Amino acid sequence: MDKIKVGVLGATGAVGQRFVQLLEGHPWFVVTALTGSDRTSGQTYGEACRWVLPEEMPEYARGMTVAPTEPGMDARLLFSALPADTAREAEPKLAAAGYGVCSNASAHRTWPDVPLLIPEVNPDHVALIDVQRETRGWRGFIATNPNCTSTGFTIALRPLLDAFGLKRVFAVSMQALSGAGYPGVASLDALDNVIPHIGGEEAKVETEPLKMLGKLNATHVADAPFRISAHTNRVTVSDGHMVCASVEFERKATAAEAAEAMANFHAPPIVQTLPSAPHCVIEVRSEPDRPQPRRDRNAGKGMTTVVGRVREDPLFDVKFACLSHNTIRGAAGGSILNAELIVASKRL
Amino acid sequence: MDKIKVGVLGATGAVGQRFVQLLEGHPWFVVTALTGSDRTSGQTYGEACRWVLPEEMPEYARGMTVAPTEPGMDARLLFSALPADTAREAEPKLAAAGYGVCSNASAHRTWPDVPLLIPEVNPDHVALIDVQRETRGWRGFIATNPNCTSTGFTIALRPLLDAFGLKRVFAVSMQALSGAGYPGVASLDALDNVIPHIGGEEAKVETEPLKMLGKLNATHVADAPFRISAHTNRVTVSDGHMVCASVEFERKATAAEAAEAMANFHAPPIVQTLPSAPHCVIEVRSEPDRPQPRRDRNAGKGMTTVVGRVREDPLFDVKFACLSHNTIRGAAGGSILNAELIVASKRL
Amino acid sequence: MDKIKVGVLGATGAVGQRFVQLLEGHPWFVVTALTGSDRTSGQTYGEACRWVLPEEMPEYARGMTVAPTEPGMDARLLFSALPADTAREAEPKLAAAGYGVCSNASAHRTWPDVPLLIPEVNPDHVALIDVQRETRGWRGFIATNPNCTSTGFTIALRPLLDAFGLKRVFAVSMQALSGAGYPGVASLDALDNVIPHIGGEEAKVETEPLKMLGKLNATHVADAPFRISAHTNRVTVSDGHMVCASVEFERKATAAEAAEAMANFHAPPIVQTLPSAPHCVIEVRSEPDRPQPRRDRNAGKGMTTVVGRVREDPLFDVKFACLSHNTIRGAAGGSILNAELIVASKRL
Amino acid sequence: MDKIKVGVLGATGAVGQRFVQLLEGHPWFVVTALTGSDRTSGQTYGEACRWVLPEEMPEYARGMTVAPTEPGMDARLLFSALPADTAREAEPKLAAAGYGVCSNASAHRTWPDVPLLIPEVNPDHVALIDVQRETRGWRGFIATNPNCTSTGFTIALRPLLDAFGLKRVFAVSMQALSGAGYPGVASLDALDNVIPHIGGEEAKVETEPLKMLGKLNATHVADAPFRISAHTNRVTVSDGHMVCASVEFERKATAAEAAEAMANFHAPPIVQTLPSAPHCVIEVRSEPDRPQPRRDRNAGKGMTTVVGRVREDPLFDVKFACLSHNTIRGAAGGSILNAELIVASKRL
Repeated sequence: MDKIKVGVLGATGAVGQRFVQLLEGHPWFVVTALTGSDRTSGQTYGEACRWVLPEEMPEYARGMTVAPTEPGMDARLLFSALPADTAREAEPKLAAAGYGVCSNASAHRTWPDVPLLIPEVNPDHVALIDVQRETRGWRGFIATNPNCTSTGFTIALRPLLDAFGLKRVFAVSMQALSGAGYPGVASLDALDNVIPHIGGEEAKVETEPLKMLGKLNATHVADAPFRISAHTNRVTVSDGHMVCASVEFERKATAAEAAEAMANFHAPPIVQTLPSAPHCVIEVRSEPDRPQPRRDRNAGKGMTTVVGRVREDPLFDVKFACLSHNTIRGAAGGSILNAELIVASKRL
Repeated sequence: MDKIKVGVLGATGAVGQRFVQLLEGHPWFVVTALTGSDRTSGQTYGEACRWVLPEEMPEYARGMTVAPTEPGMDARLLFSALPADTAREAEPKLAAAGYGVCSNASAHRTWPDVPLLIPEVNPDHVALIDVQRETRGWRGFIATNPNCTSTGFTIALRPLLDAFGLKRVFAVSMQALSGAGYPGVASLDALDNVIPHIGGEEAKVETEPLKMLGKLNATHVADAPFRISAHTNRVTVSDGHMVCASVEFERKATAAEAAEAMANFHAPPIVQTLPSAPHCVIEVRSEPDRPQPRRDRNAGKGMTTVVGRVREDPLFDVKFACLSHNTIRGAAGGSILNAELIVASKRL
Repeated sequence: MDKIKVGVLGATGAVGQRFVQLLEGHPWFVVTALTGSDRTSGQTYGEACRWVLPEEMPEYARGMTVAPTEPGMDARLLFSALPADTAREAEPKLAAAGYGVCSNASAHRTWPDVPLLIPEVNPDHVALIDVQRETRGWRGFIATNPNCTSTGFTIALRPLLDAFGLKRVFAVSMQALSGAGYPGVASLDALDNVIPHIGGEEAKVETEPLKMLGKLNATHVADAPFRISAHTNRVTVSDGHMVCASVEFERKATAAEAAEAMANFHAPPIVQTLPSAPHCVIEVRSEPDRPQPRRDRNAGKGMTTVVGRVREDPLFDVKFACLSHNTIRGAAGGSILNAELIVASKRL
Repeated sequence: MDKIKVGVLGATGAVGQRFVQLLEGHPWFVVTALTGSDRTSGQTYGEACRWVLPEEMPEYARGMTVAPTEPGMDARLLFSALPADTAREAEPKLAAAGYGVCSNASAHRTWPDVPLLIPEVNPDHVALIDVQRETRGWRGFIATNPNCTSTGFTIALRPLLDAFGLKRVFAVSMQALSGAGYPGVASLDALDNVIPHIGGEEAKVETEPLKMLGKLNATHVADAPFRISAHTNRVTVSDGHMVCASVEFERKATAAEAAEAMANFHAPPIVQTLPSAPHCVIEVRSEPDRPQPRRDRNAGKGMTTVVGRVREDPLFDVKFACLSHNTIRGAAGGSILNAELIVASKRL
């Protein structure tokens, strides 16, 4: 089949760059549009972009011309790495103009008819796209992926919720610097330090998993009926968000049972065949000192969630640590996997 | 008065060095003995010691001869920075021989008649020294300070327990590299990484605060009747242990009330006059992004506990972050303050 | 005597903060004015300033009102931490208005009648202030301190030039993050990285030492007749600039002779009595692995230059490493010492 | 053809692990033996090895049994990651026993009849293997690769020597932590620090390039007739050694000519076809702030040398920065490429 033409909105930022890098050689998609700020519009991507990833800038992108973020792009599907403020106005306009928008921005994650999607967790929520089209008269759509910290954490909770039910969850994150974009955190704030605050993050981590783990009704999602308390921290790690979680179940379960439920978790068949789906959704490690960002963030090309230290909790039932690559699984990679699900479910 | 002669056991290690540094110019104590391993015995301290602190090695110590750790030292009070294994045998022997031992080692923290002491938290527990002497026939004694992570965390809990009662506490630590001693953590493990495991640490953080916050009966302490769940992590910070805590009270209280209780906490008068006591026991900061190890670990010369982000918790009552200097307040400095209390209470 | 009223220009930036911190409790100076950008003007310093130093903001400054940088300040002496562009216009205007300006900015370092001053190196150059006043009709003056990397390096060269003459010098720097100000270097550029480029720095390191080590004629300085080649690099260190130098002498000398010349170097008597002068100008260490930023940057309260690894060079005569605290000796502290010399030489 | 059976000596250390990782799926070689210390002998590699690379341990190796380092291994070619002391005795014994030994150890680099080999630089030196066999009566051989810092630096010098001749070279290194092995540098020494000393390193960097760039006579190599001065430093980088170099030519050349000579450098045809040879031997970058370890160390799968900042030098002719991956190009990868050349030249 011919590849589907896609664009990257906000392509010069840190997440935008990750989209550009991950889309190189994609079997289904070909990048035909890159957008940037007014300042960079008209420049080549190579000129406009201060490339910050350790991987090289893909050759295909270097000579492409950066365009403004507005209808007229030669693409059917758009990956949005826009800042929330810009996304708020631009994405609905583009969806109305017929583009499918897979957005990493937080602007529309809480809209009742916008799916907040992790294919392995809630693939059925993709049907909200049909609701959007019907209600809003859009030819296109908006689909979102969750906050980078919510992502791996929600994946780890899915099999636990299914097997044992969930009542209460404590989550303390240690998040990577790349989560703040570029230039992001000043080196004088990062070196030899921990910053126990990330603006707006705790509210997202306390609410987004509930929507994703919730039940889809006809036109919206009923939040999953459990509660989360989150502490979010920035640590001196380049990539890879770690979450320490303590979980209280509806039905008692041992640490071994919880570990087994996570290790045996599989995505639905439609998801398993998607090009960006990891072979292993959750890797459960038995070493006492894993997961670690430096050693585990690239598991499954950055798409696998790595869980370790699953053990009894003195207050709740089980505690564990989980790690997820924040700019791959938790941002661009997650959004691309969402787009693949949407294509596979024939909604593009 | 004449200064009291003191020795430092295990003086060449990282905590031993901190003792040597903090005791320079102490108004009550003068260092007259330094002990090391068999290998270093007989060398000068300057030769024997690979100094790892950012401060210079004090001149007074450089030319002192390193002695073996055994009776015969010209000192009345001994600060122990021995490894737990060595401490297990050596400390009781020294206490029996008439030395007062203020130990940073974990070996005897759980002995019922050994005080686990933070002067601002449980100064009355110092009376266990009398029990020791009576029961064991020692002329000397052993007094211990808690694990470096338990320390600041227990100080923060004291006013909350007093004001509102405690039922359940979640604690997730992000601990400094110096907590592992020297050479300690390999740089290839520390750089761009988080290690979600510190051997034996979680058990200590889950139990030591209960002993310190417990009630002293005639001959032992009854643990405080609440429960703690701890996750302990190593992060790339030189000094300063951070703890994110969520706390459930016996009696409802708001975040503002909790913050006020901590900010208004004072040590008992006998403790306030000790030379190493910080002017401010708990500093409560109102900025959204404090405490931070790099900016707050030296508060009160490393003896103040800094608390921030006191806010409502969706599951329990209140959550906050607290920071304490692990090798000062949490080790050598805490032990010296204990010694000062013991002197002030006329037990030396 | 009454303390001299001083102001800090650009007080909210990283170097400005260092001035504010170092001037706390100064025996000769009292801070009576703090200036900032138009945006911060009128706010209290506590509000206007994102404090980035590990030390606490001094209490005296917190409530002071930030003023615009223009005549009318109640102060006789001004410490300038202005950006070069702003300094270019503001400093001559303030000097003409009667203020003594001790500037850390590079804007006027190359003016023939502006002294580029390190009191231990070229105290006689302070007489250029008289030239300024005569030629320009200023009641005030401008005196500058050199670039942070040139500073310690020039101090180390002074005794070598005096004893052996200099022909050629290679200098490769490894510079701290704080040299770039705040926010300065992005953490994603700093972590696990070296950046082999600092804009404009190499030209400064290749020329400033020649002016400082040059001979003062009636109205200007004749550059010292040797040549320097510099490579400047940014490394992941908070404070402390390291320079690896290889030096070719006019007259042959051994490494031991060079080390001795540096170790025996003393400031002229007028400089030794200045309040901020370090007791030891150059500390020569004999350990094979010193100086190190983390262990040596605070020598002499950050005002001592620490030299080590003095050894024969296979191409030139001698090679060594030297370290200097970039925001103390190499910026605010150096500028304050300059002001003290100017006061002591009765030029204020 | 059947793959050649190879062994890795010292396979559990950091360089040994890199051999194991790079040999996975090698088109010519199959790993059939792994050796370790007496302590680990008999364990599986998975048990014996504390894996420290960011990549996963290859599946093929996990279950292999670690053997002692002595004749009897089922392999024709051995890659040695032994410590120098062990290598000194073991390698000649193994070469005598008929094994081809490609060694990363420094023990025999200076033996006149042992090639110190970089295929792109001095492929003809491989003929020293014939000398070895004749003189010593060995059926096997020893071939060595240079020190990790010498490697990239020598590659950069090769085209400059060919085009312009070399007289004098200054080299200041900033070396990665992985160069010290595992556990190697303590994190408390690495964090916020530079260590201006690496034992024995400067002597290697000052001599090894001269042997590699020297002329092969009948039975030995005449050192290249120029001189090098080296300063070697350890910085907080995981992988990638940077060298700042200033070079004096025999015949004047501009920076542009030097850059062109390096950019146009190609390996001899026999080397270009080797499986591990990089497509581009030297990548010359024109950005002002490259190369950087984090962004450039993986160029050419870690086998390309990246040069940047080629500019005039005020003292010599040209200065530049060059970067090379120390555990790939500078150790295991270089050794594997050597083995490929030896096979291609029919000396196995």
